[in-house]
Amino acid sequence: MYKRFQELMVKIADVNYATAVLMWDQETYMPKDGEHYRSQQISTLSGIAHDLFTSKELIELVATLQEDASLNEDQKLNVVETARVLNKKKKLTTAFVMEMSTTVSETFMAWQKAKQNNAVEDYLIHLEKLVLLKREEASLIGYKTHPYDALIDEYELGMTVLELDKLFEDVKVGMKKLLDKINAQPQVKDDCMRQSFDAKKQWTLGIELLKRMGYNFDAGRQDISSHPFTTSFSAQDVRVTTRIAEDDIANMIWSCIHEGGHALYEQGLPASNYGMPAGEAISLGVHESQSRLWENNVGRQLPFWKANYSYLQETFPDQLGHLSLSDFYKAMNKVEPSFIRTESDEITYHFHIMIRYEIEKKLIDGSLEVKDVKKIWDQMYKEYMNIEITDDRKGILQDVHWSHGSFGYFPTYSLGSFYAAQYFEKACKDLPELETEISKGNNQPLLDWLRINIHVHGKKYTAAELCKMVTGQDLDLSFFMNYAEKKYGEIYGF
Amino acid sequence: MYKRFQELMVKIADVNYATAVLMWDQETYMPKDGEHYRSQQISTLSGIAHDLFTSKELIELVATLQEDASLNEDQKLNVVETARVLNKKKKLTTAFVMEMSTTVSETFMAWQKAKQNNAVEDYLIHLEKLVLLKREEASLIGYKTHPYDALIDEYELGMTVLELDKLFEDVKVGMKKLLDKINAQPQVKDDCMRQSFDAKKQWTLGIELLKRMGYNFDAGRQDISSHPFTTSFSAQDVRVTTRIAEDDIANMIWSCIHEGGHALYEQGLPASNYGMPAGEAISLGVHESQSRLWENNVGRQLPFWKANYSYLQETFPDQLGHLSLSDFYKAMNKVEPSFIRTESDEITYHFHIMIRYEIEKKLIDGSLEVKDVKKIWDQMYKEYMNIEITDDRKGILQDVHWSHGSFGYFPTYSLGSFYAAQYFEKACKDLPELETEISKGNNQPLLDWLRINIHVHGKKYTAAELCKMVTGQDLDLSFFMNYAEKKYGEIYGF
Repeated sequence: MYKRFQELMVKIADVNYATAVLMWDQETYMPKDGEHYRSQQISTLSGIAHDLFTSKELIELVATLQEDASLNEDQKLNVVETARVLNKKKKLTTAFVMEMSTTVSETFMAWQKAKQNNAVEDYLIHLEKLVLLKREEASLIGYKTHPYDALIDEYELGMTVLELDKLFEDVKVGMKKLLDKINAQPQVKDDCMRQSFDAKKQWTLGIELLKRMGYNFDAGRQDISSHPFTTSFSAQDVRVTTRIAEDDIANMIWSCIHEGGHALYEQGLPASNYGMPAGEAISLGVHESQSRLWENNVGRQLPFWKANYSYLQETFPDQLGHLSLSDFYKAMNKVEPSFIRTESDEITYHFHIMIRYEIEKKLIDGSLEVKDVKKIWDQMYKEYMNIEITDDRKGILQDVHWSHGSFGYFPTYSLGSFYAAQYFEKACKDLPELETEISKGNNQPLLDWLRINIHVHGKKYTAAELCKMVTGQDLDLSFFMNYAEKKYGEIYGF
Repeated sequence: MYKRFQELMVKIADVNYATAVLMWDQETYMPKDGEHYRSQQISTLSGIAHDLFTSKELIELVATLQEDASLNEDQKLNVVETARVLNKKKKLTTAFVMEMSTTVSETFMAWQKAKQNNAVEDYLIHLEKLVLLKREEASLIGYKTHPYDALIDEYELGMTVLELDKLFEDVKVGMKKLLDKINAQPQVKDDCMRQSFDAKKQWTLGIELLKRMGYNFDAGRQDISSHPFTTSFSAQDVRVTTRIAEDDIANMIWSCIHEGGHALYEQGLPASNYGMPAGEAISLGVHESQSRLWENNVGRQLPFWKANYSYLQETFPDQLGHLSLSDFYKAMNKVEPSFIRTESDEITYHFHIMIRYEIEKKLIDGSLEVKDVKKIWDQMYKEYMNIEITDDRKGILQDVHWSHGSFGYFPTYSLGSFYAAQYFEKACKDLPELETEISKGNNQPLLDWLRINIHVHGKKYTAAELCKMVTGQDLDLSFFMNYAEKKYGEIYGF
């Protein structure tokens, strides 16, 4: 009985991973005329996976297996988690799912066009319809206190507005204070990042950094795409992409390390649970904790660059040969309010997230309408970061998320950073030699620690449970704040 | 009713094209550890496509639509052709299909191992089982005169042993006579092909040749794989692969042009019939006629190289700068018996095919057993081409086809060459300026002719019908023989 359940789940995973291959190809190699039928092929496969997942056979199997006392721990997890997702899906009618899918696809196209033409209005017309549907979705799924909770669940199971409001209030106060301190000091220079860096050399550098992190190229590869991403077709085939700007080396380096962090998580998931919840990542927040940990707590720190800066200098002797490690370190950690979330520093990043969180929360509970979103967006950027939005492409049009219907996704980016700080401090405590080893170029102890403490568990624990189990306490912003205070205090001299 | 039939067919095509993407990736970019789950994903998608195709709904729709007098010509074709394939599939039980699939997969693995270790015996044990199943398949499908006919149908609908025997008897006599004449003359030199040719420059050259042929890179791309192939995910996404040997430029050039010919056919199929027989290639023989026509009747002729040789010389001035076009032309047309089918010249190629045809025909009708195949193979190579097989990797182990269960496939390679000669002569007759235009670098008239006369028809006609319609007569070997007599007479001086 469990065997049949597993067979069906693996079959669904096969279809979903095939879809992922088609999407990877779409972003990397597909010739432009292939778009129309590729979208259709992806949509067909998604439909097949959906039909299989909501089939009578699977639903009945899951119902029966939930009563089965003979299952082992992993098996139980797989059944319970599948039941949870099925239960949620059952609340949405096929008609609703199809309307959502069409609306998302229209809104996404409208967003692409709007971004191209810098014309926000047409996009907002579609977004309005989409927001209405997302409100309906929240109400169909159900929630205890806030409708937005129903949507967060998709990305960060168990997280609530109550918790996030408290967290972001602390973030706001803490970051504002820190930013004021930084702004009171002379700004550090980062022009060194914006010289001319040969694309091929950057490519080779990125590959080498991934190797040094421990990314397994026998079970993955890197390609170029316009937006970097990580995707997985099994724990044995986890791919990353990057983008290269010849006039900005920072772009490639930290995007590469970031995606590498995601990929190490996927490569470390238990392969024996292919296609089953026990073989999957916990949540987007935990996923982001892995990418952020490598990007920031490792990749924007001195120990890592003690090991790797000479290689970087050898690759670009004209550009960086005369720049001291100390100046390079300051440059990579420059804090300055800016327009674009994905290019922002470790501190102001969270203002970008807070703004999006506040807006989408209100859109979903109905206290804000889409027609007022642009005004609020611009106001909040002025208020939080003293930035004037004069171009919507650098404002409300910059992110794809809302046009994809992904409401509740943004907070996981901040959660990831905060988890990362807390996990990394624990790793340093468990392994007192950790940073010394990293500074010698040995990242294996850290990777081993992450594998044992986080990757190997699949979805066995929720994000909150894992955090408590591994670090001994709940998610606590002070880890991030202490880390940031210390680091930026040293860099900016306060 | 027809609309629903079309919906189902398009859905099946989506799944099959998705499978093709997974296979393309497997041959080009997949990291090595991805193999296990990739095979599983491909097998799952194939199973889903099979289930959809043999579903009660589709079978009933097809049965009803066959009686529908209101269908237009294309619709009728799509229904009739689908009925034909369904009818054939119905004759094979699921148990039989599954046993075949397992046996093929085991035989393929045994072949790979055998080729690696140059150990033929273990492969033959599996091949024996596979041949028994293929005999059973022929008997289940049914045939009028020869069991092999039932298998050829899969690749070349309507072709029979009766026709092939007659054809290959003529081929044997004609080619032998021609080969004797060639052998009586001094051999031409082709050392120029085996110098050192930079891989990157070869790559750029290949891309340029494809462009000059008319291959549309907005609807396709080229990549590297160990065995060149063409694959298609719609007429808007048709991809080719090539391989590059730095010590042999001939390998890349004519493989590139060959695959380009296949790809031009796929890019020219009617997109409006995506997923339907009316949007598919006629047969392997006709497909091969397109690749061979470009490879040989265009790509191994003077007009084409009058237009392109200077570009080749500019790319490799040290290697070819002092070589005359005339000597290059002779080199590319050197005729000499050799071990490997895929590397052989236009004449001896057909001996390779005849040997395989004779063997597989007898394996299927039971007049030859697998245990004697190696002996017969080696004997026939001695008899037909005076070649001593001392290494089975250059003998019976060289081709993948039998290990894939593809019996009846090989003859289509020869058919392709013969169709190509007949079509090309007709094109020259229809367009007297054709070769002059080609020699000026203008391949568009030829491509247009192929589009209008062959590509655009999809599966509307059988290979035989198309040949008659376009050239005014049945397939006739004399077109190829006259072409070869003339060409090699000039080159070898007889």
